[in-house]
Amino acid sequence: MEYYFLGTGAGRPSKQRNVTSGILNLLAECGTCWLFDCGEGTQHQLMKSPYKPGKISKVFVTHLHGDHIFGLPGFLTSRSYQGGHSKVTVYGPPGIQLFLKTVFQVSESHLDYELEVVEIQEGIVMEDNRFKVEAAMVDHRIDSFGYRVTEKAGERPLYAGKLKERGIAPGPLFAQLKRGESVCLENGEQLHAKDFLGPAVTGRTLAVIGDTRSCARSVELAQDCDLLVHEATFAHRHQSLAADYGHSTAVEAAEIAKEAGVQKLVITHLSSRYQEEEAGLLAEAKEIFPETYLAHDFWGTAVPKRK
Amino acid sequence: MEYYFLGTGAGRPSKQRNVTSGILNLLAECGTCWLFDCGEGTQHQLMKSPYKPGKISKVFVTHLHGDHIFGLPGFLTSRSYQGGHSKVTVYGPPGIQLFLKTVFQVSESHLDYELEVVEIQEGIVMEDNRFKVEAAMVDHRIDSFGYRVTEKAGERPLYAGKLKERGIAPGPLFAQLKRGESVCLENGEQLHAKDFLGPAVTGRTLAVIGDTRSCARSVELAQDCDLLVHEATFAHRHQSLAADYGHSTAVEAAEIAKEAGVQKLVITHLSSRYQEEEAGLLAEAKEIFPETYLAHDFWGTAVPKRK
Repeated sequence: MEYYFLGTGAGRPSKQRNVTSGILNLLAECGTCWLFDCGEGTQHQLMKSPYKPGKISKVFVTHLHGDHIFGLPGFLTSRSYQGGHSKVTVYGPPGIQLFLKTVFQVSESHLDYELEVVEIQEGIVMEDNRFKVEAAMVDHRIDSFGYRVTEKAGERPLYAGKLKERGIAPGPLFAQLKRGESVCLENGEQLHAKDFLGPAVTGRTLAVIGDTRSCARSVELAQDCDLLVHEATFAHRHQSLAADYGHSTAVEAAEIAKEAGVQKLVITHLSSRYQEEEAGLLAEAKEIFPETYLAHDFWGTAVPKRK
Repeated sequence: MEYYFLGTGAGRPSKQRNVTSGILNLLAECGTCWLFDCGEGTQHQLMKSPYKPGKISKVFVTHLHGDHIFGLPGFLTSRSYQGGHSKVTVYGPPGIQLFLKTVFQVSESHLDYELEVVEIQEGIVMEDNRFKVEAAMVDHRIDSFGYRVTEKAGERPLYAGKLKERGIAPGPLFAQLKRGESVCLENGEQLHAKDFLGPAVTGRTLAVIGDTRSCARSVELAQDCDLLVHEATFAHRHQSLAADYGHSTAVEAAEIAKEAGVQKLVITHLSSRYQEEEAGLLAEAKEIFPETYLAHDFWGTAVPKRK
């Protein structure tokens, strides 16, 4: 499970950083990847990355500002030609349906796959047997959602070796024990599942928080997360600008990470005005929260396992 | 007067060619540039080009397919931050207004300059004292316009040296003669404008034809042009595919150029399937029309003066 950055700049593209987009690599967990935001040029960045558009099954949009959505029509239409025939679901704030419907209608775009567009509210956005995604409204100039992704506790592993030692060959008995059922052998002996199952794998949790001022909802979303991806548009000395424009400083992102007790913080969405002093922004954040990393385009980081 | 290519590929971006966009450099003629089409990533390409978004005063859209318009919202919104405070006029097929209005409304985008959006029909699209732009519907799967740009014959240059020889200093008399008026000197002598004005500079003409099958309207648009920019999505051996998809082959583009008697043809909008055999496409076209050039991203060519 890796979070990979396709675009890490704020507002408009620069030569160093494209506008926002990130990939959550869940290939090992469920065979697909999820996209978070899709600024203009995301399909171009994907071309230069190890990830394939056809593998992306879900897109989570934090908010409808152009630097987070103007790449969505191009990504979705080009995907048909890049091995993408499986369904895609786009989750985003109300307005995302009108945006995509109008753009596709005017441009007479047709997709070779099923597209579902879900306008979200706060609360559980999606849930299956493996993952739960929740959204909460953070504090920007426009409705902006932060997402919390929870990997459910994994299945308990079966100690197959222990069974083989007892002379039991793989087969239906293995499956029964794996399901947690007790088993009666031909010789009348009872085997109890608890004796042959290891502890459940702990699920990982991450939060992706797009454009926002520092706010309490971000702390709630990020509570005890293994990875927090948080915007840091401004340096500490421009805190009042950050507040005016509905953004955060690197220090504020670090304070959220500290208060929420996360394992790892990655700051992103940096204003291009800090091109020459990004190390300074990172240092400001690390003073508050040492496990802080600075995102770059085409850089990924593992979602760590809970210690 | 130069036509500079920002994107020369078909359908979707490749590593070699971005989707369609081109700049007509009129800095010497009227201090601005015009954009023809604006596929996704045009603002990114502009960043790497010698041209400035703030200098672009007009955008001519050939048709509403995504690879020709999905970069328009990003180009227009980022332009505010790149020295663009002067008015922009976007000309395009009906639907362009709904596209921009909806996208700007949903994304709550605000521009720092005046934007006029003109839905065009066939005929004269714009005309001022220096240029005339006409549009005609060509033959694609969706309404698609070709544009013909006519530079009006320039002013007749005043032979200032000849006047100075007569002892006449620069001043109001010069201006009168320049306007073509006769002048009466203090000594009663009459000066006739025709004796002091050179022949008018011949205006140049170019045609930019977006996605289309080979059609008679293209010949009309390109008649006697100095430069014809024409799509060439397919190789000759795929002529039936070209017809099916509403496109042209390189050979068909060359035939249009020959029939219209243009000075120079540039073929663009190449399918990425020909990456390894582009020289072959060019050769096919040059057999029909020797003055053919193959466009590349970040390559410009002068609009030649009429011989």
